[in-house]
Amino acid sequence: MSTSSNLPAVTVLGLGPMGRSLAGAFLAAGLRTTVWNRTPGKDQELTEAGATAAASAEEAVSASELTVVCVVNQDAADAILRRADVTRALKGRTVVSLTADTPERARDTARWAAEHGIGYLDGAIMTPAPSIGTPEAVFLHSGPRDLYEQHRPVLERLGGTHTHLGEEIGRAATFDIALLDIFWTAMAGYAHAVAIARAEGVTARELSVFAQGIAAILPPLFEQFAADADEGTYSGEINPVTSAASTMAHVVDVSESHGIDAGVMRSVEGLARRVIGLGHGTDGFMRVAEVLGRH
Amino acid sequence: MSTSSNLPAVTVLGLGPMGRSLAGAFLAAGLRTTVWNRTPGKDQELTEAGATAAASAEEAVSASELTVVCVVNQDAADAILRRADVTRALKGRTVVSLTADTPERARDTARWAAEHGIGYLDGAIMTPAPSIGTPEAVFLHSGPRDLYEQHRPVLERLGGTHTHLGEEIGRAATFDIALLDIFWTAMAGYAHAVAIARAEGVTARELSVFAQGIAAILPPLFEQFAADADEGTYSGEINPVTSAASTMAHVVDVSESHGIDAGVMRSVEGLARRVIGLGHGTDGFMRVAEVLGRH
Ligand SMILES: NC(=O)c1ccc[n+]([C@@H]2O[C@H](COP(=O)([O-])OP(=O)(O)OC[C@H]3O[C@@H](n4cnc5c(N)ncnc54)[C@H](OP(=O)(O)O)[C@@H]3O)[C@@H](O)[C@H]2O)c1
Ligand SMILES: NC(=O)c1ccc[n+]([C@@H]2O[C@H](COP(=O)([O-])OP(=O)(O)OC[C@H]3O[C@@H](n4cnc5c(N)ncnc54)[C@H](OP(=O)(O)O)[C@@H]3O)[C@@H](O)[C@H]2O)c1
Repeated sequence: MSTSSNLPAVTVLGLGPMGRSLAGAFLAAGLRTTVWNRTPGKDQELTEAGATAAASAEEAVSASELTVVCVVNQDAADAILRRADVTRALKGRTVVSLTADTPERARDTARWAAEHGIGYLDGAIMTPAPSIGTPEAVFLHSGPRDLYEQHRPVLERLGGTHTHLGEEIGRAATFDIALLDIFWTAMAGYAHAVAIARAEGVTARELSVFAQGIAAILPPLFEQFAADADEGTYSGEINPVTSAASTMAHVVDVSESHGIDAGVMRSVEGLARRVIGLGHGTDGFMRVAEVLGRH
Repeated sequence: MSTSSNLPAVTVLGLGPMGRSLAGAFLAAGLRTTVWNRTPGKDQELTEAGATAAASAEEAVSASELTVVCVVNQDAADAILRRADVTRALKGRTVVSLTADTPERARDTARWAAEHGIGYLDGAIMTPAPSIGTPEAVFLHSGPRDLYEQHRPVLERLGGTHTHLGEEIGRAATFDIALLDIFWTAMAGYAHAVAIARAEGVTARELSVFAQGIAAILPPLFEQFAADADEGTYSGEINPVTSAASTMAHVVDVSESHGIDAGVMRSVEGLARRVIGLGHGTDGFMRVAEVLGRH
């Protein structure tokens, strides 16, 4: 495959909603972009826009110094990258994984890459596919700093903000997991609140007006509770965990009185009750982070 | 007790952090304020500021047309209000409960009040004690509209925004419960995320920087998901619940690999898996609100 052009080249493996967005953004930024997907037929819009469709994953990775892999999870990425011919073709090149998985899997992939003379960076995308190529996109990266600096000009063509979190390869996945933990737990609270509201004849839209106010008070509390957690202070002066637990019990009560499962809030209340049981009843709820960490 | 002054009078029963804030705000607004608390000795600052300390709850409620009760929960409020001499003294007067409890308890209190010729409004305070008397305070009210309009001038002396949610007495408690559901569930997600981050060597403050971004994306999602819920559309095009469940499983995996309890996220993932199992895998996560409501 010709490398006569001076345009940087990039390969994208995986053409789900996110992979297509990434390839589209690289193309729009003027990069020579090669694409491949396990199931054929997902590259038409991209080839019409100038992408090169590779006939195989090994052909795809041979076309560029840098390969971005974005598939459902690391099992899928391994199924592509760890085939002998693909691994061979990657020798001396770099893989950036924008596939979501755990820090342990990122470390395992880094070991595999090192064994095969492949450069490896792990990343996480914290914003939805339509954000790619816009200033709203948020990318987290981890891995060798020099390798990151080398490929940063290409990665930054994806738009948005790019943060290198450190050399430890698991950092991007750690932040990804922790942030998704907050996101999905909050969403579960919202879905459950909507179910309770409905059972009491209140529509989701009526609730949403006031739910905006709850979302608005979170950022300063996150900051304050982070200081609590880092310093081990856990002050409960404004709101002791005993008071929080009593409120949680009301949520469980109303929920179950309508036959609505309250498993999530029962677990949350259980954490608060454990904090109280361990003798920290006058502390704030954030003491939970400490109790969870004990083992 | 003299009622010769033209200043409106108000009585506050319960002098915990919130009751003291309420009484303090009434005093600062120039109202003749009578206070009482089960355990004596909590009224000193208030009497120094001009409050009248009543020797008993029945004396306290006799001093004003309007009594605000703010104690830990409805059991505590009942222990005060349903004693025969207090109930008698309240006849022809109005009680506003700013005590947090369930909608069912508000309804029960309304029945008791009607039987005894007592006006009754239920309310909820959605902001912490230090907000009282400031524009940040948020009060929700429910109950007879004319009774609310009659006492609104006094209630508005507490500052902030006051919303009458409707005549159905349980509405304020319903919103209170649903909003606390969102709040505490989100906080549990945050505390858990901090525990995971720490186990991976990331401080709470490092995480908090990016957690701000998660809080920032919630309000528009709450609005969009409310529309989904009200219309039963639950579109999963951007993010199907199958993809959400896979992410949740990663959170559980990382958590438990560090010996950190993942009970909350296991419950959340269980809801997502039930949605998938019921044949709605291509829907968005908000379909959970529907599944929870089924019984
Ligand atoms: N969509 C978003 O808004 C968003 C936001 C942030 C992060 N992410 C992350 O980005 C990654 C990709 O997400 P996505 O939205 O594009 O869709 P996805 O449904 O998570 O992944 C689809 C891609 O994975 C491939 N794949 C699945 N199993 C495979 C296997 N065994 N071998 C090879 N390829 C396999 C699919 O190929 P086939 O076409 O052959 O099935 C397709 O290319 C995920 O890790 C996701 O968490 C997505
Ligand atoms: N603090 C806040 O920031 C805040 C914010 C929003 C809503 N609220 C709500 O406001 C209400 C009051 O909260 P709070 O912060 O003032 O403190 P709290 O600890 O919830 O309640 C303390 C008050 O309850 C009284 N009490 C408890 N058991 C009683 C009983 N069996 N009989 C009579 N009185 C009893 C206490 O009297 P003793 O002194 O005699 O024990 C004291 O006056 C609660 O429903 C709370 O959920 C508080």
